[in-house]
Amino acid sequence: MTLDNPVFATFAISAALMVIKLMGQGWITVYRMMKIRSGFASPEDAKAGPFNPDPKPGQTDYNDYVDRSRRMHRNDIENIPAFLAIGLLFVFVAPPLILAQLLMYGFVVARILHTLAYATAQSHEVRSVPYTVGSLIVIYMAVHVLVVAIATHGPL
Amino acid sequence: MTLDNPVFATFAISAALMVIKLMGQGWITVYRMMKIRSGFASPEDAKAGPFNPDPKPGQTDYNDYVDRSRRMHRNDIENIPAFLAIGLLFVFVAPPLILAQLLMYGFVVARILHTLAYATAQSHEVRSVPYTVGSLIVIYMAVHVLVVAIATHGPL
Amino acid sequence: MTLDNPVFATFAISAALMVIKLMGQGWITVYRMMKIRSGFASPEDAKAGPFNPDPKPGQTDYNDYVDRSRRMHRNDIENIPAFLAIGLLFVFVAPPLILAQLLMYGFVVARILHTLAYATAQSHEVRSVPYTVGSLIVIYMAVHVLVVAIATHGPL
Repeated sequence: MTLDNPVFATFAISAALMVIKLMGQGWITVYRMMKIRSGFASPEDAKAGPFNPDPKPGQTDYNDYVDRSRRMHRNDIENIPAFLAIGLLFVFVAPPLILAQLLMYGFVVARILHTLAYATAQSHEVRSVPYTVGSLIVIYMAVHVLVVAIATHGPL
Repeated sequence: MTLDNPVFATFAISAALMVIKLMGQGWITVYRMMKIRSGFASPEDAKAGPFNPDPKPGQTDYNDYVDRSRRMHRNDIENIPAFLAIGLLFVFVAPPLILAQLLMYGFVVARILHTLAYATAQSHEVRSVPYTVGSLIVIYMAVHVLVVAIATHGPL
Repeated sequence: MTLDNPVFATFAISAALMVIKLMGQGWITVYRMMKIRSGFASPEDAKAGPFNPDPKPGQTDYNDYVDRSRRMHRNDIENIPAFLAIGLLFVFVAPPLILAQLLMYGFVVARILHTLAYATAQSHEVRSVPYTVGSLIVIYMAVHVLVVAIATHGPL
């Protein structure tokens, strides 16, 4: 478990990219809220202040432009932390490098494509493809870890 | 930190099962949305397409059957990533195997029972029991790690 | 990667504190729901039972006192799991102890201040300061890990 191990380095690169993506989505929500000065989450956000010099009614109402970024964020937090955990455990089962690269970089690409599809309001069908790819990669890695761990250790 | 260490193997098995559970909840939401063709999250999901050949009004309205799966998912993401992180750190404090098995497999069982209680709309009182067990297990592991880390290293 | 390594111990202490914070937010939501007997998430929660001996209409309606705790929880799950994952990987790049302490304890302090600002409904401007500090710490650690991993291993 050092960066000299290419499987671990593949995981570290993928994980760092996914953490940046996850945190970036929060800033996209902030950017969208500030741009249209609406979609605020809390009553106090609609008060006058440097971020909101000229309050107007309805600033805390639902707004699809802002909520879309929150939905994308929610989809990230439903998928990325699971990848971060199982990706690390996957390194411990010492998979072939090419398999680790395919799965981990595949997950990163799938999540970027999902973000693009969601941000541009592509159809449910289009958005579902990268979602499915990312989800199946995480599930595959979990089943692989489970099988190897049980084979090594026994079920209990 | 290898799968030959039974405490680590216990964590790997528990973590893989919880990742599969977490990802599976997303697919249950998809299944429920497709089954009743309602509870969609985004305006574009209500457009005609292979997943929605015959659109009807109100497909993006709140629907308890679908939203229940999203609430279960939210409860998962509030609990499972914390378990995945603290469970790994708990392996580093080298606990007795029986304690690790009790806590980690206990968490897995508690979260499965919570899922069943939530899916079948059991009373708040019933659902709260597995929630509490799972939450206290995570808190116990965190306090244990904190105490050992401070005892080993000092507070700063 | 043992607790004798002060950088790893710093991470273990920070991670344990953040897990306790994250789980504690769930209990604050429970406390608030029970205190005002409102803001319940599911229809079955409004039925009579030991937790709700005297049901009244509107117990599942939106309630800011309860929902504020859920928003704080959501903000936690958008930030803390990413910290837990990248903090562990940051230990592997062997940073100077003082840098690890600054970033990791800085994150803990920032999230505690964010919680206090949110709980007391401080202005958007005040709340944004600890949010920004915590977010930038996670992003910095991710970029640092990414650069070292690519420098050690190459991009693919």
